[in-house]
Amino acid sequence: MSGNTIGHLFRLTTFGESHGPAIGGIIDGSPPAIPLTPDDIQPYLDKRKPGQTRHTTQRREADRIEILSGVFEGRTTGAPIGLLIANEDARSKDYDAIKDKFRPGHADYTYQVKYGVRDYRGGGRSSARETAIRVAGGAVARKVLGKGVTIRGALIQMGPHSIDRDAWDWDQVDANPFFCPDKNAVAGWESFLDCVRKDGSSAGAIVEVTASGVPAGLGEPVFDRLDADIAKAMMSIPAVKGVEIGAGFGAAELSGIENADQMRMGENGAVEFLSNNSGGTLGGISSGQEIVVRFAVKPTSSISTPGKTVTVAGRNTEIATHGRHDPCVGIRAVPIGEAMLALILADHLLRRRGQCG
Amino acid sequence: MSGNTIGHLFRLTTFGESHGPAIGGIIDGSPPAIPLTPDDIQPYLDKRKPGQTRHTTQRREADRIEILSGVFEGRTTGAPIGLLIANEDARSKDYDAIKDKFRPGHADYTYQVKYGVRDYRGGGRSSARETAIRVAGGAVARKVLGKGVTIRGALIQMGPHSIDRDAWDWDQVDANPFFCPDKNAVAGWESFLDCVRKDGSSAGAIVEVTASGVPAGLGEPVFDRLDADIAKAMMSIPAVKGVEIGAGFGAAELSGIENADQMRMGENGAVEFLSNNSGGTLGGISSGQEIVVRFAVKPTSSISTPGKTVTVAGRNTEIATHGRHDPCVGIRAVPIGEAMLALILADHLLRRRGQCG
Amino acid sequence: MSGNTIGHLFRLTTFGESHGPAIGGIIDGSPPAIPLTPDDIQPYLDKRKPGQTRHTTQRREADRIEILSGVFEGRTTGAPIGLLIANEDARSKDYDAIKDKFRPGHADYTYQVKYGVRDYRGGGRSSARETAIRVAGGAVARKVLGKGVTIRGALIQMGPHSIDRDAWDWDQVDANPFFCPDKNAVAGWESFLDCVRKDGSSAGAIVEVTASGVPAGLGEPVFDRLDADIAKAMMSIPAVKGVEIGAGFGAAELSGIENADQMRMGENGAVEFLSNNSGGTLGGISSGQEIVVRFAVKPTSSISTPGKTVTVAGRNTEIATHGRHDPCVGIRAVPIGEAMLALILADHLLRRRGQCG
Amino acid sequence: MSGNTIGHLFRLTTFGESHGPAIGGIIDGSPPAIPLTPDDIQPYLDKRKPGQTRHTTQRREADRIEILSGVFEGRTTGAPIGLLIANEDARSKDYDAIKDKFRPGHADYTYQVKYGVRDYRGGGRSSARETAIRVAGGAVARKVLGKGVTIRGALIQMGPHSIDRDAWDWDQVDANPFFCPDKNAVAGWESFLDCVRKDGSSAGAIVEVTASGVPAGLGEPVFDRLDADIAKAMMSIPAVKGVEIGAGFGAAELSGIENADQMRMGENGAVEFLSNNSGGTLGGISSGQEIVVRFAVKPTSSISTPGKTVTVAGRNTEIATHGRHDPCVGIRAVPIGEAMLALILADHLLRRRGQCG
Repeated sequence: MSGNTIGHLFRLTTFGESHGPAIGGIIDGSPPAIPLTPDDIQPYLDKRKPGQTRHTTQRREADRIEILSGVFEGRTTGAPIGLLIANEDARSKDYDAIKDKFRPGHADYTYQVKYGVRDYRGGGRSSARETAIRVAGGAVARKVLGKGVTIRGALIQMGPHSIDRDAWDWDQVDANPFFCPDKNAVAGWESFLDCVRKDGSSAGAIVEVTASGVPAGLGEPVFDRLDADIAKAMMSIPAVKGVEIGAGFGAAELSGIENADQMRMGENGAVEFLSNNSGGTLGGISSGQEIVVRFAVKPTSSISTPGKTVTVAGRNTEIATHGRHDPCVGIRAVPIGEAMLALILADHLLRRRGQCG
Repeated sequence: MSGNTIGHLFRLTTFGESHGPAIGGIIDGSPPAIPLTPDDIQPYLDKRKPGQTRHTTQRREADRIEILSGVFEGRTTGAPIGLLIANEDARSKDYDAIKDKFRPGHADYTYQVKYGVRDYRGGGRSSARETAIRVAGGAVARKVLGKGVTIRGALIQMGPHSIDRDAWDWDQVDANPFFCPDKNAVAGWESFLDCVRKDGSSAGAIVEVTASGVPAGLGEPVFDRLDADIAKAMMSIPAVKGVEIGAGFGAAELSGIENADQMRMGENGAVEFLSNNSGGTLGGISSGQEIVVRFAVKPTSSISTPGKTVTVAGRNTEIATHGRHDPCVGIRAVPIGEAMLALILADHLLRRRGQCG
Repeated sequence: MSGNTIGHLFRLTTFGESHGPAIGGIIDGSPPAIPLTPDDIQPYLDKRKPGQTRHTTQRREADRIEILSGVFEGRTTGAPIGLLIANEDARSKDYDAIKDKFRPGHADYTYQVKYGVRDYRGGGRSSARETAIRVAGGAVARKVLGKGVTIRGALIQMGPHSIDRDAWDWDQVDANPFFCPDKNAVAGWESFLDCVRKDGSSAGAIVEVTASGVPAGLGEPVFDRLDADIAKAMMSIPAVKGVEIGAGFGAAELSGIENADQMRMGENGAVEFLSNNSGGTLGGISSGQEIVVRFAVKPTSSISTPGKTVTVAGRNTEIATHGRHDPCVGIRAVPIGEAMLALILADHLLRRRGQCG
Repeated sequence: MSGNTIGHLFRLTTFGESHGPAIGGIIDGSPPAIPLTPDDIQPYLDKRKPGQTRHTTQRREADRIEILSGVFEGRTTGAPIGLLIANEDARSKDYDAIKDKFRPGHADYTYQVKYGVRDYRGGGRSSARETAIRVAGGAVARKVLGKGVTIRGALIQMGPHSIDRDAWDWDQVDANPFFCPDKNAVAGWESFLDCVRKDGSSAGAIVEVTASGVPAGLGEPVFDRLDADIAKAMMSIPAVKGVEIGAGFGAAELSGIENADQMRMGENGAVEFLSNNSGGTLGGISSGQEIVVRFAVKPTSSISTPGKTVTVAGRNTEIATHGRHDPCVGIRAVPIGEAMLALILADHLLRRRGQCG
C-alpha cells in the first residue's frame, strides 16, 4: 500500500533512488510466450534518456536495461520479470548544498515531514529518475498489447506557446528535440527555452498521448474506469498538475448537442462515431475510438534564480538550484506519458479477459 | 478487480442499479469508536438528492440511508459498515424506447460490447444513481477525518459562464440551486440553464473542491500520490472529463519563478507557503496547505434534441431522450466531488498511520 | 485491508453482525451472462441453516437470500451482485450475562483489545452467522465454475471417532444430520454427541472437501498458490485450527518413493496420475486431479460447564454459556468449507484466464 | 494478481529463477527510520544456505544480499527496499536430461499446462531457490517487529521420527544440522537420513515455528484472520502439505472442556491464559499468547530411484533425478517458516496501526 505498484493483473512495482546503486522493478502478471528482449525496451529508454540535447539535463546515464528473470529463450514465461538499470552518473557531492534546505516545489519538505528521514541526494526516491523504470515497464506493456495498438505522444504546448493542431505531423515528433508534431513551432520553442534557461527560470508544457487500435470493452464501471485509471497514471508522473480526456476541460463549454458523439454503422459493419469528444471512453469503458489524453506539466522546480525557503532546522533562508536540470521537464514527460498509457491499457486488457473471457 | 471498490485501508465497495430494488455499499476499515448515526450521512445525501429544483431531474427519491452493521450504541466497532438506500421512484416503463438503441455519450454501447448483456433500465449500473452511495461513504470518511478537516465544493463555471473568483463567498454556496459561490453569477446561470433546457440541449460545468486542515504527510510517492489518487477519484465521477490540482493546466504557462511556492517560517513556528500553485501536494504528499482540485463535467448526454445513433441490431436510427434528466449534471457533481475527496483523504490518513505510526 | 474481502478477480466482501438487522455481501467480478436466481443459492443456505436437528443450535433463521443487483432477466450482467439476508431470530436479551465477561475460546477478549469497543450481542461480527454469506457467495462461485466442477464435503471425524474411509458413500452424506459419508458411523456419532451435550461439553471434528473436474493450471506460483489460498480460506472459517491438502500431515511420514504421484499417458491421450498424495496441486497449480482438502474444527467454545475467566473490568470470575449453541460446530462447517473452496477456485479460474487467456 | 507478492502494508514482491543471473525482491511499506544493514539479513540467509552439511544439497551459493534502495545512512527511508542475490552456482547443463520429461511431484507438468512455456533449468521459477528472498524479507520484517518479538523454528519430526517434546531445548536448535531441539533425537535422525539417501529416497518432516511477544490485537476478522494469513504463508512454502495452529488437528479430539483456554488476571494486572490450545489467536486476532504454528513438509520429490512419468510430447517414460538435492527439504524449511511468520506479523502490525491507531 506504499504506492510503488501500479496495475492489478499487469503490475509494475518499482524501487530505487537517484543516487543509489541502481533502480529497478518487477513486472508481475505478464502473459506467457510473448517475445521479449532488452531490445524491445531499450529504444524507449533512449528516448527518455537525459543529456541528449542542451534542452535536457546534462546528467549522463546509459540507462542500459537488464532483464533478470521471467524470460526464457526470448519469450516470457509468465513468471515475474525483474528489471534493473544501474545508476552511473550519480554525483552525490552536488547535493551537499541542499541537504539542509527544502527546495520550493520539490518533495523535500513533505518527505521530511512524512518520514522523518530523507535521502536528499538528487531528491532520493522523489527524483524523476524513477520514471526510467516506468518507461521500461511501458515497453513490456506494449508487447502485451500487441502490434494492433499504437501509442504515441507529443508535446503540444511549451510555456504559453501552443502548436497549430492543423499542422500536426507525427513524423515530425522524432525529428526535433521537443517531440513537437508541428515543425513550424520548433524554432520558436528553441529560442523560448534558451531565454528561459538564461533567465534562470524554467517552463511548463502540455503533452498529448493517444492510443489507437484499442479494443472496445476495456475499463471497469464505477471506480476503476479506464479514464480514471489513466488520469491517475498521468497525474502520478512527477510535476503533472492536470489531466484531461477527449474534449476535457473544453467540454464544460460545449452544449450537449455539440458534445454528443453521434453514431453510425460503418461500411465494414462496425459502429462509427462522428466525433471523438469522449476521447475514446464511454462510461469509463473504451469504445474502440482513439484514446486521447492530455496532461499539463509544471515548470521545473529546480531553477537557478534564488527563492525564499526554510531550513530543516526551521530558519528562513534562500536557495538557488544550480547543477544539471531540465529547463522544461515536460519534454521528457512525453515517453513517460506513453509508458503510463501502455501500462494502464495492458492491465485492463487482462482484466477484461479475466472477467469476460 | 472489477472496479467497484475504492480505497485501500478505508475502502468503499458499492453495488446497485438505477432500477433495482436498492443500491448499497460496504465501508471496510473504518477505525473503531467513531460516533456515527444516519444523521451524519443524511444531510449530504439530501444535498445530492434529485428533484429539489427545476434545475435537476424530477425523479423523486427519498434517498434514506440505512446503516445495517458496523455501528453499535452509536459508535463504529471496526467491523464493516453496511449501507443501503432503497430505490423508490424507478419507472422502468420510461426506458422501453431506449432498450434497443444506444444513447450517444452514454455507456449503453460500451456495456453491450463488454458484457454482451445490458440492464438498460435507466442505464443500469452506469446510472449516476450509484453516486448516492459514494456520497454516503464520503460522509463517513468525513467523520474519520475529524472536525479539523473541512471539505467544501462549489460550481465555478456553468457552460461558458465563469464566476468572478474575487466575489467568492462560501456562504452563498448553499443559498442558490447551483452551489455557486458568486451571488452575482446566479441569475445569469438561471436564465442560461432555462434556455439550454428549452433548446433541448444541456450544459457542462466546472467544479472546485477544497480541503483545508489536511495534515502534511498524506500520500505515497510514485504511483499512489495523493494528487494521483484524487485525480482518479474525480475522473471516476460520471461525465467528468478533466481534473487539475492547484494551478493545474495554467501551470503550463507559468514560469518556474512564478510557479515556485516559496516558503517562510510562520509566527507559530510552522512552515508557511507564500502561494499555493501546488494545490496542497508536493511530490504527491500533502504539504499542509489547502488541497485545491477542479474538475470539468461534460454536458448531460441525455438531451431531447434528436441525434444520430445505431440500434443494438446494427441499423442506423435517431434518438431523443425525453424523461427526467438533469440539464447540467455538474450541479449535483458538487457533493459527489466533496465525497470523493473525503474518501481519498481518509484512506491516505490511515495509510500514513499504518506505515509511519 | 480490514479483511472482509476474499478473492481478487472473483471477490466477495461481506458485512453484518449476529444481532444487527441483516447480514450481506457484494460479489464483484462475476462474469456476465451467467444464469442466476435465488434458487441457485437457497439450497446451500438451507444446508447450513441452524435449527434443523437437535444437533445444531436452535436459533431459527429462514436465511432467505435476496439478490439486490447485478442480475437482469435471470442472468448476471457483470455488475456487482448485492446479497442480503435478514436476521430474524436475534434475541439480544440472551446476551446480557456475557456483556461484561470474556468467553474463553471466543473472540470477546481480542476484539475488546483490538477495537476498544465490542458488539457483544451474539458475538457481533465474530459470530459464525457471517458464514451464511460465504455460503451464498460459494453458490454463485459454483455457477461460475460451471457444471464440470463438482465440490462436495463430508464430516470424516467427530471428536475421536473417525469414519471408515472404505465405507465412503457420497449418497449417505445428505441422509444423516452429520454430513457423514459412512452410514455405519452415524449411530455412534449420534449417541456420542448426545453425551457431549449432556455433559455440558462440546466436540471437535474433521471435515473433508473435494473438488473434481477442476482444470489444470489454476493457481499462481510462489505466494498465491492454489493450495495456499485454499489453506487460508479454510483457516478463515471460525473454529478451524488446521488444514491439509492431499496426504497432508501424513506426507511427513511417507518416503519420497511412496509419496511420488507417478504419471502415465491415459487411454484418452491425457496425463494420468497413479496416486493423489499431492491432493490435486503441484507447485501450487492444479494438476487436473481431484482437489482434496481436510480441516480440523475445534470443539465449540460455548459450553454450559462453568470455566474460569475475567471480566472486562479485570476481575476473576466464572462463566457458563447457556443458550442456543451447536455442540459440534464442525457439522455446519461442511457446507461452509464447500463454499470456501468454490470461492477460491472461481477466483483462480478468472485469474488464469486473465493472465493466460 | 500473479501471486508474487505477499502482504498488504508490509509487502514483499519477488522475482527470479533457479538459473537466471539473480533473484531479488522489493519490500514496499517498511516504516521509516528503522536501522537496517545487510548484516541484519545475512545471518538468516546463511542459516538457509545450501551446502553446509551432507544433509542438504551440495549446490554452493554465497547468497550474498545486496540492498539496492530504501536505506540511507543505515536507516530505512520509507521508500521501497530493493533486494538482490546473485546466482552463482547455476549449472544449467545438469538439467538437459529433464528438459523433455515431467518430474513427478514437481511443478514441471503444471507449469507446462498453465503457461505453455517452461524454464526447465533447475525448476525455473518453481525452484525453492526463490525462498532465499523470503528469508531476506523475513529478516527485514523482524526489524519492523522489533526486539520484543521473538520468532523461532525447529524441526520436530523427520520422517516418522518425532522429538520428545519434554526434551525441548532451544539452545540445541543451532547445535545440530537439523534445527532439532531434542539433542537425543539427532543421532537417530542422522542415521535415518543417511539410509534414506542411500536408498535413493527422501524424507518428509514437520516444522514448528513460534512467535512470542506478539502484541494482542493483530489480525482481521473474517477472511484475513491472523491464523488464516499464517496458514497461507506456510502453505505457500514449496512442499508444504499441511498447517496447524495451536492444538491443530489434535483439537478435533479434545472436548470443549479440555480445549477451553481459561483466563485469569495475572499478578501484573494483565490477562493470563491457563493453556494455549488456541496457539495465540482468538477469532483470528492475536491474544498476546505465544503464536504456535506447525507445518508438514513432504519428502523431496527429486529422488534417484527411477519412477514412471511422461514426456512433454506425451509418451510414457521413466525418470530418476540425480544431482544436487536435499534428501529432506524440511530441514531448510525451518528458517523459511520463521521468515514467513515474520512477514505476516509485520504486515498485521502495520494494518492494526492503520485502522486502530
